[in-house]
Amino acid sequence: MQRDPERSGAIHPLLAGRFSPYQFDPSGAVDDRSLGLLLEAARWAPSAGNSQPWGFFTSRPGEEAHERVVRHLAPSSARWATNAGLLVVTLTQRHVGDSELLYSEFSDYDLGQAIAHMTLQAEALGLASHQFRAFDMEGLTKELAPNAGWAIVSMIALGKAAGEAPEGRDRRSVADLLSAPWAR
Amino acid sequence: MQRDPERSGAIHPLLAGRFSPYQFDPSGAVDDRSLGLLLEAARWAPSAGNSQPWGFFTSRPGEEAHERVVRHLAPSSARWATNAGLLVVTLTQRHVGDSELLYSEFSDYDLGQAIAHMTLQAEALGLASHQFRAFDMEGLTKELAPNAGWAIVSMIALGKAAGEAPEGRDRRSVADLLSAPWAR
Repeated sequence: MQRDPERSGAIHPLLAGRFSPYQFDPSGAVDDRSLGLLLEAARWAPSAGNSQPWGFFTSRPGEEAHERVVRHLAPSSARWATNAGLLVVTLTQRHVGDSELLYSEFSDYDLGQAIAHMTLQAEALGLASHQFRAFDMEGLTKELAPNAGWAIVSMIALGKAAGEAPEGRDRRSVADLLSAPWAR
Repeated sequence: MQRDPERSGAIHPLLAGRFSPYQFDPSGAVDDRSLGLLLEAARWAPSAGNSQPWGFFTSRPGEEAHERVVRHLAPSSARWATNAGLLVVTLTQRHVGDSELLYSEFSDYDLGQAIAHMTLQAEALGLASHQFRAFDMEGLTKELAPNAGWAIVSMIALGKAAGEAPEGRDRRSVADLLSAPWAR
């Protein structure tokens, strides 16, 4: 891919080729083997003290679980996320039960790592992924009723991308990554 | 690698081969090109609304910046992290300036994703990485003095691993990833 010439031929293709599509091909099913590999990839992510603060609720079109999730999507995400072959609700364990005690100060950071591993495994399987927060958090939390201490964080649509990568993807420069925390 | 047979030949080699070494070879320098690719990999990670809440402070043995970081390591990490060819201090933008306003509710999650991209690019370059929190947070924050709103989160040692992967690496089962948030 030459969409972003500055990174082609440099960083690893799995990292360079990744993008978050806004359209999925409804014919792109995610089979059991692929689903298993996505979870296996997340599973082997590193975490603080091997705390593994992550959990997932997965569903595919046609499954009852899918309907339980889809009804809580915002209109903006329902337009495209329902066509994805897989929806993953991500959860992290922030607290120990009902207490104020943190399970890990790295719960969200480590969930992010596990998700990155999952989405890069998706790339390796030829699947695209798009993370989003456009859903009714309160409604979905009531629907799935995770234990005390656990919180829903994001959703991921995974499947076969339809259409090309968006034009004009942009990022801060490397120089900015190294100076922004100190720039005045 | 066959250390963990259950995952060999299944998930992508970059994900399967990754481990966090407790020893680095002091001869394993990280050159400018590799450093640039590590930052480039982090740069292209996804983030909520493309908020890119990450920043980095990098240093290598022999550089003045390295001494500024190393003096704040805990004894437990100083034993091995000083031998790594590169130390990266990771920062995230949690708040807007001095305010209580969140810059992004995904600051830590997205930093975790960027770090995962960086560490997998490291794997692609033949470099190992080990993230840790064993340093004097208050002292290092005073030393580096990031702007209001920015927080140091973790450090990463990257370089040439010395010795084999630790024995007995373990993770919760995939079944547990899918049931833990609801298990009673």
